[in-house]
Amino acid sequence: MTNKKDIIAGIIIIGNEILSGRTKDTNTSTLANWLNSIGVKVNEVRVIPDIEDTIVENVNLFRKRFNYVFTSGGIGPTHDDITSASVSKAFNMTYGIHKEAFEILEKYYKPGEFNEGRQKMAWMPTQANLILNPTSGAPGFYIENVYCLPGVPSILKAMLGGIQNKIVGGDPILSVTLNLRTVESEIAQSLTDVQNKNKDVEIGSYPFFKAGKLGVSLVLRCTDKNKIDKCNMEILKFVKEKNIYIIE
Amino acid sequence: MTNKKDIIAGIIIIGNEILSGRTKDTNTSTLANWLNSIGVKVNEVRVIPDIEDTIVENVNLFRKRFNYVFTSGGIGPTHDDITSASVSKAFNMTYGIHKEAFEILEKYYKPGEFNEGRQKMAWMPTQANLILNPTSGAPGFYIENVYCLPGVPSILKAMLGGIQNKIVGGDPILSVTLNLRTVESEIAQSLTDVQNKNKDVEIGSYPFFKAGKLGVSLVLRCTDKNKIDKCNMEILKFVKEKNIYIIE
Repeated sequence: MTNKKDIIAGIIIIGNEILSGRTKDTNTSTLANWLNSIGVKVNEVRVIPDIEDTIVENVNLFRKRFNYVFTSGGIGPTHDDITSASVSKAFNMTYGIHKEAFEILEKYYKPGEFNEGRQKMAWMPTQANLILNPTSGAPGFYIENVYCLPGVPSILKAMLGGIQNKIVGGDPILSVTLNLRTVESEIAQSLTDVQNKNKDVEIGSYPFFKAGKLGVSLVLRCTDKNKIDKCNMEILKFVKEKNIYIIE
Repeated sequence: MTNKKDIIAGIIIIGNEILSGRTKDTNTSTLANWLNSIGVKVNEVRVIPDIEDTIVENVNLFRKRFNYVFTSGGIGPTHDDITSASVSKAFNMTYGIHKEAFEILEKYYKPGEFNEGRQKMAWMPTQANLILNPTSGAPGFYIENVYCLPGVPSILKAMLGGIQNKIVGGDPILSVTLNLRTVESEIAQSLTDVQNKNKDVEIGSYPFFKAGKLGVSLVLRCTDKNKIDKCNMEILKFVKEKNIYIIE
């Protein structure tokens, strides 16, 4: 249900720690919720390893395919942080010391503490625009429609405020959730009928187990509040007819 | 650091609920940890929407690229569950009632309860092999190297035991984690030196904030315990020299 006028984004999560299962990715959820609120829909997420060619290939594919691209991870000072170098290569830009980033970091650290390891965080595409980091000094950066953010969830989150005014979204994507004490198979047919009559509303059906009980969350998503309301009414109608309990 | 003899997998997470940010994906971590333990390395994860063409394209790409492919989500009974139909199309197989799955579901439900909605869960590629579901009846399935599992994390987890003997992995991927009270920039250069001398060990460096304190987790991964031990010793050497506190 992507319309031509939809503003769409792709997310690239860079890091072996997600692929190894060691760390659960939460940045996708943070970015997607934030993007939805400013009218941008996430169409694809890829989790890829710390391998230069893979990063270059995916960044170049995504920046053509989506209005906005967000990368997370790999911009720190250690040997496995290769996102900045890889993105430079993708854009065919010089990878070197970014003057403004260097000055920010130099001020951030106490005299004598701005060592070689820390200086590496000023290395990026020299022509990039900075994304300021209110938490820990080291900035992220963006080039054209590609925004490169760190992997640490709290730092990534804190940096979104600084780029909000760069992202031009469409209408915010509204959503309504209905939690029902039922199972999907009881409502599948009625739900299909409602979906067919409300093509512009994306209806998601998600079974859950909570406190030992089965339930289904229905999520209605659309940019038009009236369309969501109409769809919601039609669902509530069959929910009532079937005597299904609404949770909360 | 993928060797030719590595057994590699790709994961396709199917579902708008992940892309919308509503739900945080945990199935990647579950699958990756399990796969690592049986000697399979996850090389890529994609999160894609409930769109048939997108599912077909990604399944067909991944099944050529990786030894094993796992999909999660979209095999339930509602209108947005289109994985089974899409995978049938990818393999050019008939999508219809799978006899064995139908019998399992028929037995699982009380007489009269096996309604049309529930019967939809027996629809899949008719020639597929089943993956039994000890939790809630409805089976998953596999065709060649593509394993289709449900999206609900607890059910997915419970079904892995049933396919463990189908997956032929390489040597299990061993890992050692060192948690240090330091920041990355303090150890970046020493770590690069150790990585250069231990090419077969993948060294990951992950900064964290816990209880208001900064730290770095170093994760060493390799199939050869001796190589991990040697690398670990070299790290411990510079950690001692730098007077860095080891947490735990």
